[in-house]
Amino acid sequence: MENISKVTHIESVRLSDDGTCVVIIDQTQLPNRTEYLELSSAEDIWDAIYTLKVRGAPAIGICAAYGIYCLALQIRETDYDRFLCEFRKKKAYLDSSRPTAVNLSWALNRMERAVLADRSKDVGEILELLKAESLKIHREDIDMCKAISEYGLSLIKDGDGILTHCNAGPLATSRYGTGQGPLFLGKERGMNFRVYADETRPLLRGARLTSYELQKAGIDVTLICDNMASIVMKNGWVQACMVGCDRVAANGDTANKIGTSGVAILAKYYGIPFYVLGPTSTIDMNCKSGEDIHIELREPEEIKEKFYQEPVALKDVKCYNPSFDVTDHSLITAIVTEKGVCYPPYTESLAKLF
Amino acid sequence: MENISKVTHIESVRLSDDGTCVVIIDQTQLPNRTEYLELSSAEDIWDAIYTLKVRGAPAIGICAAYGIYCLALQIRETDYDRFLCEFRKKKAYLDSSRPTAVNLSWALNRMERAVLADRSKDVGEILELLKAESLKIHREDIDMCKAISEYGLSLIKDGDGILTHCNAGPLATSRYGTGQGPLFLGKERGMNFRVYADETRPLLRGARLTSYELQKAGIDVTLICDNMASIVMKNGWVQACMVGCDRVAANGDTANKIGTSGVAILAKYYGIPFYVLGPTSTIDMNCKSGEDIHIELREPEEIKEKFYQEPVALKDVKCYNPSFDVTDHSLITAIVTEKGVCYPPYTESLAKLF
Repeated sequence: MENISKVTHIESVRLSDDGTCVVIIDQTQLPNRTEYLELSSAEDIWDAIYTLKVRGAPAIGICAAYGIYCLALQIRETDYDRFLCEFRKKKAYLDSSRPTAVNLSWALNRMERAVLADRSKDVGEILELLKAESLKIHREDIDMCKAISEYGLSLIKDGDGILTHCNAGPLATSRYGTGQGPLFLGKERGMNFRVYADETRPLLRGARLTSYELQKAGIDVTLICDNMASIVMKNGWVQACMVGCDRVAANGDTANKIGTSGVAILAKYYGIPFYVLGPTSTIDMNCKSGEDIHIELREPEEIKEKFYQEPVALKDVKCYNPSFDVTDHSLITAIVTEKGVCYPPYTESLAKLF
Repeated sequence: MENISKVTHIESVRLSDDGTCVVIIDQTQLPNRTEYLELSSAEDIWDAIYTLKVRGAPAIGICAAYGIYCLALQIRETDYDRFLCEFRKKKAYLDSSRPTAVNLSWALNRMERAVLADRSKDVGEILELLKAESLKIHREDIDMCKAISEYGLSLIKDGDGILTHCNAGPLATSRYGTGQGPLFLGKERGMNFRVYADETRPLLRGARLTSYELQKAGIDVTLICDNMASIVMKNGWVQACMVGCDRVAANGDTANKIGTSGVAILAKYYGIPFYVLGPTSTIDMNCKSGEDIHIELREPEEIKEKFYQEPVALKDVKCYNPSFDVTDHSLITAIVTEKGVCYPPYTESLAKLF
């Protein structure tokens, strides 16, 4: 297995070289300070996940896997049952850091299964299994992102202008990312894209994270306000739009960061292909259409106050602050997963993936 | 003539009650501080225009008209020629505050014509003529805004949800405004609209000014980020979009604050009428189409740094920061002027106005 820690890409999370702690890039400090944090205590790991120092579902899962492994190393029990008991306490604690993050529980449950797999093994052997499982979780995510990126890359060509929205790059995942994955993979292969990154209000992850990681990778990126996507497309600068996804319904309706549906409508108007990229795990076949997807509403202060030196609207002005929107399947040119590219009609092409 | 100073509307600019200075609301302090400034020196008036304390083409014109009148009051010459010489010095100085603002020169030239109209008059009489002319410029703007608002109001009905972009309300003009005028006029008549105000990045005039003046007028306003317009329309909350305009070409292509064209494309997709409101003076019949309209590019710091506690993107990230965009005439349901409502084909309907 390739030594993950030696990769030169920006890595949101990895195991430290001495294998005793989790190293993350503190995403709350970007782009102004690139700070790596070494997390070895349960409290530090919990806090990093809770305060969004590490964010993006895959990155959280990997952090939790490495985290529970490092905490297991600290358990002073040699008896299996006592070890398991301590392990479960730490697991439950980490699991409480972001209760709604699916990848968090998923990764921790995989790690627990490694402990439960063979009770006859001694604790030293179990720790080896845990380390292997955590590295495997990380490796699988890299492979999945790479497969998505590979399929996505087949849809665009050298020199293309690509418009992105929000952040679905290396910081949110492991290497490459999903929505922005083809850009990083293409760069590795000497391809050059002109990327237009929507700043993505209200939390500005396009400005703070996407433009940061593209620039650091030497990819030509231009930051724009969300409302500039139309003129950029009209100028003829955009040959494709590529975005990640939070949930895809069986008919292809796609929930992603607020504003994604607007980008898709603009792309349709200007005749530009609009691609959604994500792992098959985000496709929810129990969800018939976007109508079934609940949209999280967030606090008005994100619009009125956050990031600013002083409020930008009256204290008592009403705000509507949906975190996501649903992009109608009719606006999506293709949905790209690690298993391949799906075209309309999505009710058929997505079903074939499962 | 109605006493303009007694109106209870927010007024961006007026003559003081004692008639010796210009009173403006300092728009750079909104929405956090509602500060009225009394301007009586040439330097203060120049500075207010230059630093955007008063902004919006009509408001600037009115401010300049009252300003030059107040400065004329201070001229200590009784000889006509000497008076004219002093007047012209002050006029040239004010005119230099924002060289590209058409309404500024336009208003100052009107005021000069009042001085030149009859050389046989004594200075006292000329000052009376100047006062009358400045009040007339203000009154004409109110009448024009009211006419536009009246025509605009005929296109919507009580209870409608209206989406707006940027600021074209009372603060930018005199009473009512243009793009948001029907909302204020409707409110006076007891009508209630639900208004969705795009915050309008990068300078946030939708948040800072539009949501402020609507809220202060008791109009139901909800502030949204620009990228939330799509979900708000999809939710069925918007029955019409209403925006102002900076320049309208002979074929109806309309330059307005960046992001306007995106709103129009979304409106078309969702089947929502999209109305442009503005005075006939913004229709440029020498401009065949949007192709002829030059788009001002502004400094990247507006996207990367302004308003924020710290930068939101790397210092060296490229930004594209166009101030306006052009909305294609095919996306515009009607163009509303003080002379009436124009429908497609605009090459014919706009020409009939002149």
